[in-house]
Amino acid sequence: MTYCLGIINRFGIVMGADSRTNAGVDYTSAYRKLFDFSLPGDRVIVICSSGNLSVTQGVIIGLQRDIKNGENTNLYTLSSMYDVAHYIGNKSRQIQDRDRAWLEKDKISYQCNFLLGGQIKGEPPELYMIYPQGNYIQATKETPFLQIGETKYGKPLLDRTITYDTPLEAMAKCALLSIDSTMKSNLSVGPPIHLVMYETDSFLLRHKLELRLGDPYLAKMRKQWEEYVRQSFEAMPNIQWQYEEQQSQEDILID
Amino acid sequence: MTYCLGIINRFGIVMGADSRTNAGVDYTSAYRKLFDFSLPGDRVIVICSSGNLSVTQGVIIGLQRDIKNGENTNLYTLSSMYDVAHYIGNKSRQIQDRDRAWLEKDKISYQCNFLLGGQIKGEPPELYMIYPQGNYIQATKETPFLQIGETKYGKPLLDRTITYDTPLEAMAKCALLSIDSTMKSNLSVGPPIHLVMYETDSFLLRHKLELRLGDPYLAKMRKQWEEYVRQSFEAMPNIQWQYEEQQSQEDILID
Repeated sequence: MTYCLGIINRFGIVMGADSRTNAGVDYTSAYRKLFDFSLPGDRVIVICSSGNLSVTQGVIIGLQRDIKNGENTNLYTLSSMYDVAHYIGNKSRQIQDRDRAWLEKDKISYQCNFLLGGQIKGEPPELYMIYPQGNYIQATKETPFLQIGETKYGKPLLDRTITYDTPLEAMAKCALLSIDSTMKSNLSVGPPIHLVMYETDSFLLRHKLELRLGDPYLAKMRKQWEEYVRQSFEAMPNIQWQYEEQQSQEDILID
Repeated sequence: MTYCLGIINRFGIVMGADSRTNAGVDYTSAYRKLFDFSLPGDRVIVICSSGNLSVTQGVIIGLQRDIKNGENTNLYTLSSMYDVAHYIGNKSRQIQDRDRAWLEKDKISYQCNFLLGGQIKGEPPELYMIYPQGNYIQATKETPFLQIGETKYGKPLLDRTITYDTPLEAMAKCALLSIDSTMKSNLSVGPPIHLVMYETDSFLLRHKLELRLGDPYLAKMRKQWEEYVRQSFEAMPNIQWQYEEQQSQEDILID
């Protein structure tokens, strides 16, 4: 399994991913799922992947090759994030075309998802999710985050906190906690965690982070969060229970 | 969908359930999923259900009938919670035996899960989950909560807060927030919410609660929780980003 998320708002973009890949619970390993294709000063392009590893690696290598070979269409030449999403979707379809029949024979999922975030000079910053079928959607002001992989454990936190006006640093902490919550509840999501933070119109990915297993910041953050959650329960008004005055059968018998 | 949970520790048991039942997203309705079969002074028995409504209703009606008809084996005569779990599992198997072939023909799921919590005089309080196959497991000190239905959204909160020593009132608030988180993230889980809190060795279900749509306590609790989460992000130490000093291509060109 995998958990990747992207958040976008007026201030910029935060993207994060875990690194655990597993074939059953008895075989896990670590593979990077967040890739930086930025061209500083001109464009920031970050891609996260989930799903069949041979397919996602095939896509990422294909993207790198197109740049290296100077193809007319590559991540450095496209002029909008929308076009980049389309291009990645097509790349994913190509790899699937190649392998799908063989994987289907053995009932192995060939599906994969991508998150794409960034900004190209002259364009606004944008965040996309690319489906296994190669089509794609864009995050909007109303729903400023997108997730792929094991999305449920980390969603409530995002639902409650992220708005179009959330400061970037808070967004980054929220993304880390969202990943940490998922790791705590699902063994198939695990470190290292990769996190990037992009400031709108900077055209430079200044903020990057890799957190390894046992990283003191992660441990500190988790401990502080749990302390806050406990405090919040204590501070919350007590429940006004109903029917508190119900009598026990014994009381009734004694009466 | 459905979300029910049960929590047990040294102080007692908390159980909660939503009430939304749906057949596709275009047909939702409200059905109670938490049932109190207590016999005050002698035993407290609370059952929550999820899954195929015709099967779960069949089971609940079967349990009620056995009491009414004075069957030798019923919820009032069994002498341990373990035996009660076994009895409910068998009841579920009976109903499935009756309907399974017909439902399978049309690929309709006949599966259902139950939570069973309570205490019988002379026995310790216990919490069980009964699987669709009729077998069952018990919550223990190490894992003091059990969930059925849409379990993922509400789990991170429980993972981080519930221990064998959590006060009952805090456990109840946590259960409510766990249900509220699930409602916020999944439309097919919805109010009224039913919640009960049982104090060990009281043999009386004193604390009951029904929260309807728009209940002011629920709204207040949600608002306060969101405020706490926001505050916790602000108070959390800032991320120590790596590679902050990376230069942009423009910087390089200017140099």
